[in-house]
Amino acid sequence: MAKQQLPTQAEDFSSWYNEVVHKAGLADHTPVKGCMVIKPYGYAIWENIQQDLNPRIKASGAENAYFPLFIPKSLIDKEAEHVEGFAPELATITHVGNDKLDDPLVVRPTSETIMYAIFKDWIHSYRDLPLRINQWANVVRMEKRPRLFLRTTEFLWQEGHTCHATSEEAVEETLRGIVMYEDFMRDTLAVAGHVGYKSKSETFPGAVHTTTVESMSREMKAIQSCTSHFLGQSFSKSIGIQFQSKDNTLEHVWQTSWGMTTRVIGMLIVVHGDDKGLRLPPKVAPIQLVIVPIFRDEDGAKLVMAEVHKIQDALPGVRIKVDTRDNMGPGAKFYEWELKGVPLRLEIGPRDIEGGVCQMARRDLNEKSEYKLAEVAGQIPGLLEDIQTTMFEQSKAFLDANSHEVATYDAFKKVIIDGGFAFAYLCEEGDCEDKIKEETKAGTRCRPFGDKPEGGKCIYCEKDAARRYYFAKAY
Amino acid sequence: MAKQQLPTQAEDFSSWYNEVVHKAGLADHTPVKGCMVIKPYGYAIWENIQQDLNPRIKASGAENAYFPLFIPKSLIDKEAEHVEGFAPELATITHVGNDKLDDPLVVRPTSETIMYAIFKDWIHSYRDLPLRINQWANVVRMEKRPRLFLRTTEFLWQEGHTCHATSEEAVEETLRGIVMYEDFMRDTLAVAGHVGYKSKSETFPGAVHTTTVESMSREMKAIQSCTSHFLGQSFSKSIGIQFQSKDNTLEHVWQTSWGMTTRVIGMLIVVHGDDKGLRLPPKVAPIQLVIVPIFRDEDGAKLVMAEVHKIQDALPGVRIKVDTRDNMGPGAKFYEWELKGVPLRLEIGPRDIEGGVCQMARRDLNEKSEYKLAEVAGQIPGLLEDIQTTMFEQSKAFLDANSHEVATYDAFKKVIIDGGFAFAYLCEEGDCEDKIKEETKAGTRCRPFGDKPEGGKCIYCEKDAARRYYFAKAY
Repeated sequence: MAKQQLPTQAEDFSSWYNEVVHKAGLADHTPVKGCMVIKPYGYAIWENIQQDLNPRIKASGAENAYFPLFIPKSLIDKEAEHVEGFAPELATITHVGNDKLDDPLVVRPTSETIMYAIFKDWIHSYRDLPLRINQWANVVRMEKRPRLFLRTTEFLWQEGHTCHATSEEAVEETLRGIVMYEDFMRDTLAVAGHVGYKSKSETFPGAVHTTTVESMSREMKAIQSCTSHFLGQSFSKSIGIQFQSKDNTLEHVWQTSWGMTTRVIGMLIVVHGDDKGLRLPPKVAPIQLVIVPIFRDEDGAKLVMAEVHKIQDALPGVRIKVDTRDNMGPGAKFYEWELKGVPLRLEIGPRDIEGGVCQMARRDLNEKSEYKLAEVAGQIPGLLEDIQTTMFEQSKAFLDANSHEVATYDAFKKVIIDGGFAFAYLCEEGDCEDKIKEETKAGTRCRPFGDKPEGGKCIYCEKDAARRYYFAKAY
Repeated sequence: MAKQQLPTQAEDFSSWYNEVVHKAGLADHTPVKGCMVIKPYGYAIWENIQQDLNPRIKASGAENAYFPLFIPKSLIDKEAEHVEGFAPELATITHVGNDKLDDPLVVRPTSETIMYAIFKDWIHSYRDLPLRINQWANVVRMEKRPRLFLRTTEFLWQEGHTCHATSEEAVEETLRGIVMYEDFMRDTLAVAGHVGYKSKSETFPGAVHTTTVESMSREMKAIQSCTSHFLGQSFSKSIGIQFQSKDNTLEHVWQTSWGMTTRVIGMLIVVHGDDKGLRLPPKVAPIQLVIVPIFRDEDGAKLVMAEVHKIQDALPGVRIKVDTRDNMGPGAKFYEWELKGVPLRLEIGPRDIEGGVCQMARRDLNEKSEYKLAEVAGQIPGLLEDIQTTMFEQSKAFLDANSHEVATYDAFKKVIIDGGFAFAYLCEEGDCEDKIKEETKAGTRCRPFGDKPEGGKCIYCEKDAARRYYFAKAY
């Protein structure tokens, strides 16, 4: 296999991204425009994400279920604001076999309308509330400029949908959802982000408000991989989901929805990747430790493999790959496993064994050190934890270093041109948000939770403004 | 909640089935014709199935991946025999937003064509073989007479697809697949079946041969929930999947595919259900033990709940539900948990505690016995194992008792009318198979592995016949 260099991130981030996805074996384009194939190495990351996120979802009281892929067009058309947001992206089925359908079906772009039409039959009394349902599924939003993971016509996700008796409870659930994602991103994906509310123009079609986590890629653009929406009563009123309250009145339920998609894999790449390729946080890495045994003859092989097996046997809880391929040299192997982002690489040869040592490289720091053979297995779990923590700290430091409070539009534009988040007042009255986007390509990303601004001037029109937003270019 | 009786199986099996699915909270119809919603209790069964089957699939060397939902019509049209089998059931997407597609897309009815068009780029040399890929996904085959789980337009499944250098290896893999399912059905679903080859007319469109497990419902019809196909080189030749062999020749790969669907949940219902409702084997039951505490006052509640918590704490590995609903009496609860098929039900009240006992009902035998409180927690894991085994034995005994070797067409017809499998010689030359189906509604289900017939007369035309098939009516 020819060892072709990746382009550097600084040279051409977009080519770097495409090459990493391709060469690390994460995903590929397919004969279906805009649809990707998630290859085993990429899908294993998704499985690890599912295995970590699913118990968090269940801990909230949500139960998994499965709803239809299709939505009758007449049903989605009922919810005007919602369908307007999705109409240009909808895939429509008009024929089955040779028969034309009377009411065409659309492939779900999200499941609010079909789920809620069904929830209607499940909810009658306050005793049926809260209802918390989650679904792991594929959804389709036709994408004209697809990018693997970041923007694909079909993607995988989980979508949580809840119904509540009161507005307060639904608002609380919306926050619980985004905090669950924030925790998951910090603890499992090692990704820091700004958490807060979306501006009106960036709010989910049909929602009262949308909350988000906004992270920062190595090219200093914003990347969002999850949202949690407070839907108010707009769907429950249009679909008619009502319940008998404790006071015997008939009320419409208050709703939320929240989701995270395979886009997170794209996020992992752009947040953690470096010029050598992927860097995967241990908790989701399909391979946490790769062992490269080095030997020249059968005696060496015996000696080295005996030590390798000892290390393997001592670490039943660690995802280990032993790379014994005989058609590749150690250098090419190191290069490949670095590109694939394996957190720890252990190298061991007869000379190491003689000295009672082995060599180990950490992908988070790109450092190699010598370890005592007798101790190394015992140290590996701690090292993996340390890598996990270090990667979050790196992500947090990068986010902080590139998030700038600005007071003038000139300073704002400089931040956006240089890359990063600009934090600024926005009046939210006229078309300032649109104008800024037009002129700088930077949009509002979020108004952070807990921000207590004293009041200032809108970064664009300089009129009085009460609230501050993070702005950035985004994927 | 009004306690409405189920119809008995003998009265009306079909209504019994529908009522059980509905009342046990497994699934429901939706506004999308032919598509079901799998409700939390039904989906939890599917999750348990996945958690047990997935490691078996991975143990075979297969890796999970994810391929597009859509297949370009031009691509599926290439494989003539295959598309002919699926054409009437294909959902076709002609429009996205307001734009008409030049090449329409079909929603995958199965993924051979799209996967293999992609495998083509993955396979170059014998070193890339065998390739074993599995996908957990939804598929769509438009169904005009849908039945929940048994026959739905959209269903969930796993589909394994493998490529091999030799025919022998692919044939072996086909068998490995069906044996994996047989083991899974026996050990996990507690379902017995006849395992063997499908007749030519029942073979998967595009396959050389299809293997199957054929089980028997309580109404003595055949039910099939999984298949494993030897595809030969038909797809690899039409799509062009070639590899450089060790001898440096260019060869087409030999392929297999194998799958199991959400239909297995329908199978669990029709194989294990009785007049009281579902009976779930412990390994896939979402609730393995339901505890119904019985008390009248707060002192009783304290006393009883303390014992309940002791039992719970002693059984961390058991899926337990404690039914403390205060708007239902014990009788209604017993009825509901029997209907939902929970394998073990423990009842406990103050008087039991006084006597140091509790009452426990086994759903497999519909028997209730007294257990010593001090011992019961320790006995439960063993009881669950015993229920699992007993349920398989019940299924096996029922299959054996209702599988009849027949030598005359009159005897054959009697078996089919009474219900069950008729085992008979078939010439496989003329249209005997079609005629039998026309006259009796019974089709061939499988030619069992390992059958060593001495030769006999075709059950229909009475000409010489070498091979025997199981025949039955089916879902």
